[in-house]
Amino acid sequence: MTLFKRIHHVGVAVERLDEAVALYESAFGMTRGLRAALPERGVEVQFLHLPGSTVELLAPLGDDSPVARFLARRGPGMHHLCYEVDNIEEALSRLTASGVEPIDPVPRPGAEGKLVAFLQPKSTAGVLIELQQA
Amino acid sequence: MTLFKRIHHVGVAVERLDEAVALYESAFGMTRGLRAALPERGVEVQFLHLPGSTVELLAPLGDDSPVARFLARRGPGMHHLCYEVDNIEEALSRLTASGVEPIDPVPRPGAEGKLVAFLQPKSTAGVLIELQQA
Repeated sequence: MTLFKRIHHVGVAVERLDEAVALYESAFGMTRGLRAALPERGVEVQFLHLPGSTVELLAPLGDDSPVARFLARRGPGMHHLCYEVDNIEEALSRLTASGVEPIDPVPRPGAEGKLVAFLQPKSTAGVLIELQQA
Repeated sequence: MTLFKRIHHVGVAVERLDEAVALYESAFGMTRGLRAALPERGVEVQFLHLPGSTVELLAPLGDDSPVARFLARRGPGMHHLCYEVDNIEEALSRLTASGVEPIDPVPRPGAEGKLVAFLQPKSTAGVLIELQQA
């Protein structure tokens, strides 16, 4: 049975948000969506859309945020992969039963206001996966 | 004008292909698609599908392949992001005019037989981008 519905977006960590947004808009032809500063998470995000796909650019707010540490360790690049699910509570319960470990055992509102939960990359063959309720 | 049509797939580098395929099938509920060994590229790939999205798992064939070096340097995780384009020659030409550098200036057949070309991550804000002709 399908648990994940589709890739909702790919999260990409960048050093300078405006510079990356200009590249995605002018060179790649993507359309700007929501931009939001999330100071409690130490990150500013900009969603960019294609007709059927979305990229979320993430830039750090401050030097000791998780995204700043990711950039210091790995440089800019893909940061997380968000899958859409119909029912996030049920998805977390089924994934946990399969041996996948949640970072967020209880879903919380994400940048777009929908319920999200991240999964521990050590339990997903290395990818930081975000679940988002449709 | 939209240059990229949609995210075609996300490429994920893994250490052991069968173990990762089992996770994506049984825990994530994805469906197996094409599996192919590409010895000239030092990689074996397995496509996994959701109704509207695809993941390509990549495992190294041999210790000195690009994917083996990626794993040694960064560990398992997202490796490349493939966007579908209508006309890959025109896309490469427009991207080059915008300052993006191709790794493959001339498109070549990819794992699925369609024309593909990779772009230099230093010119794309850090992401190894693959273009694939629709």
